[in-house]
Amino acid sequence: LGDSLTEERIIAIIREMLPVAPPGVALGAGDDAAVFDFASESVILTTDAVFEGIHFSRRTCSMSDIGWKAMASSVSDIAAMGGEPACALLSIAFGEPPDERDLRNLMAGAIEMSAGCHCPIIGGDICASTSGLSLTVTVTGIPHPGGPVLRSGAVAGDIIGVTGTLGDAAGGLYVLESGSDDLRSRYGDLVEAHLRPRPLLAAGQALAGARASAMVDISDGLGRDLAHICEESGTGCELRARDVPVGDELRALAAEAKVDPLRWALGGGEDYQLAFTVQPDIFEEVAVALAERGVQAARIGMITPASGGMRLTGADGRQTDVKGLGYDHFL
Amino acid sequence: LGDSLTEERIIAIIREMLPVAPPGVALGAGDDAAVFDFASESVILTTDAVFEGIHFSRRTCSMSDIGWKAMASSVSDIAAMGGEPACALLSIAFGEPPDERDLRNLMAGAIEMSAGCHCPIIGGDICASTSGLSLTVTVTGIPHPGGPVLRSGAVAGDIIGVTGTLGDAAGGLYVLESGSDDLRSRYGDLVEAHLRPRPLLAAGQALAGARASAMVDISDGLGRDLAHICEESGTGCELRARDVPVGDELRALAAEAKVDPLRWALGGGEDYQLAFTVQPDIFEEVAVALAERGVQAARIGMITPASGGMRLTGADGRQTDVKGLGYDHFL
Repeated sequence: LGDSLTEERIIAIIREMLPVAPPGVALGAGDDAAVFDFASESVILTTDAVFEGIHFSRRTCSMSDIGWKAMASSVSDIAAMGGEPACALLSIAFGEPPDERDLRNLMAGAIEMSAGCHCPIIGGDICASTSGLSLTVTVTGIPHPGGPVLRSGAVAGDIIGVTGTLGDAAGGLYVLESGSDDLRSRYGDLVEAHLRPRPLLAAGQALAGARASAMVDISDGLGRDLAHICEESGTGCELRARDVPVGDELRALAAEAKVDPLRWALGGGEDYQLAFTVQPDIFEEVAVALAERGVQAARIGMITPASGGMRLTGADGRQTDVKGLGYDHFL
Repeated sequence: LGDSLTEERIIAIIREMLPVAPPGVALGAGDDAAVFDFASESVILTTDAVFEGIHFSRRTCSMSDIGWKAMASSVSDIAAMGGEPACALLSIAFGEPPDERDLRNLMAGAIEMSAGCHCPIIGGDICASTSGLSLTVTVTGIPHPGGPVLRSGAVAGDIIGVTGTLGDAAGGLYVLESGSDDLRSRYGDLVEAHLRPRPLLAAGQALAGARASAMVDISDGLGRDLAHICEESGTGCELRARDVPVGDELRALAAEAKVDPLRWALGGGEDYQLAFTVQPDIFEEVAVALAERGVQAARIGMITPASGGMRLTGADGRQTDVKGLGYDHFL
């Protein structure tokens, strides 16, 4: 185990081994999705897997939630590029042969999500696995006419913004894991945020149209996902904890659970909100464009030179490193 | 377990649930790959997963074999449509954090295969699983100018042909599972066929150019894969066992192992040869086109009306049902 690798190191080794810029590859590994230039069309391509016991538990998620969420998590990568979904492939591995009801519920969740995003499932693969259920969803999409919004475009001085409120999905998971029907009935919106995330496609397209300089979806936790932007852009960042948007329901649950709601908001993943960077003079314009699509935007910090590191100023004024917040599959 | 479903029934339920012909979908579930019409480009899309303990064992496959084979199995679906590969996405789940050597070997095998097919890996996903290693490979491709060759185009009276020799991969697996170094040194080509399959891209394109009426790659075993053609085309078929091409090396191993080589040739999957149908008057022309690419073609039977069923005439003259030969993940 002394020689085993972290997720970050695994990705670094893979990126180092992949050939540099083969023909047709407009954007390779290192972003939410890749972009391939076919002869007369640029296509965004992304794939994401979810495994029972790692990403979900059958105790807290129904089969239709699992299908929905697997699809949503891949579609969200298209949102994070500012693109429009085109079609999806769904690969399912079953730990044991499913019964018809489970299969129909799983597919109903995936189909409902894909239909709502105009991203039809057009093919896939079925097989057996020695462990539990897993789903791998590949989604293709079309970039915004202004081009895809990459992780690598942030510049020192840009404002960092996020959509919606953060930590709701982590709060929902807390409620589900508590097993309390009372909590579940009172915090239904948080549970919904965890079980039925909605990729922010219209918001992502609006941000692409408004020329956001960089964008990422918040799937691993704000700290970790912002670190992706800083690493790819060669910058640092400065976040203010008190500006991170936390909803009233999450605040109430946190008080009841005696948890700092910022722990959920900064470290919890799976919100599938968007974090983005824009030039300071257009932040207000961007916020208006998002509001017109029913999405709130909060200004939570600023991009700095790389030398400044990635710093978070806590409510108490103390500074911590942003990178430590979030989820590594192998830590 | 009384209510659990077969692979065939799972696929039937999923196909029944998927919306019929959403916009842009030129070809949906039911073939080797799907085809999506982007605004100005048709793209072939396919995904395939391999799981440790189901599709491969670390005892018989090196990490680089596993990477190679996962990539080859998806690229082969592009060959089976007569297409040309464009790019690939690779999703890997690790049962335990890999060490650097294993990771590099796995990637080296996948990259070597993808580079040889001009199908660069442009993105993917890394995660943890609760069981062993699994790889899901999505490959995109461009159809032949004459259009993709589907499973559904066979017509009664067409000749059924196959490329190469069948059963070599199954023989290779037998050698590996025997653990015998002696067998392994004497039957190296069979082992190579199992560990390092080579998708027949040039042959698939030649068959598309020669207007083959239907095509499939042999991944689940000849019987099962031909049944796909018959089901999608609404036909039956008539195969002659003595015409199924078996190589000398496989014949020698079978004699030594006291196995009927036809068992491997008809039921063993993973040969990634192509089975195709053509009008009788062009079979010779097709065989010549394949020979020019170094691929031999054998005529093994004929497409019949559906009422005739799917029949195999054995060497002893007895007739059996073709459908029973091959691999169901859940049987």
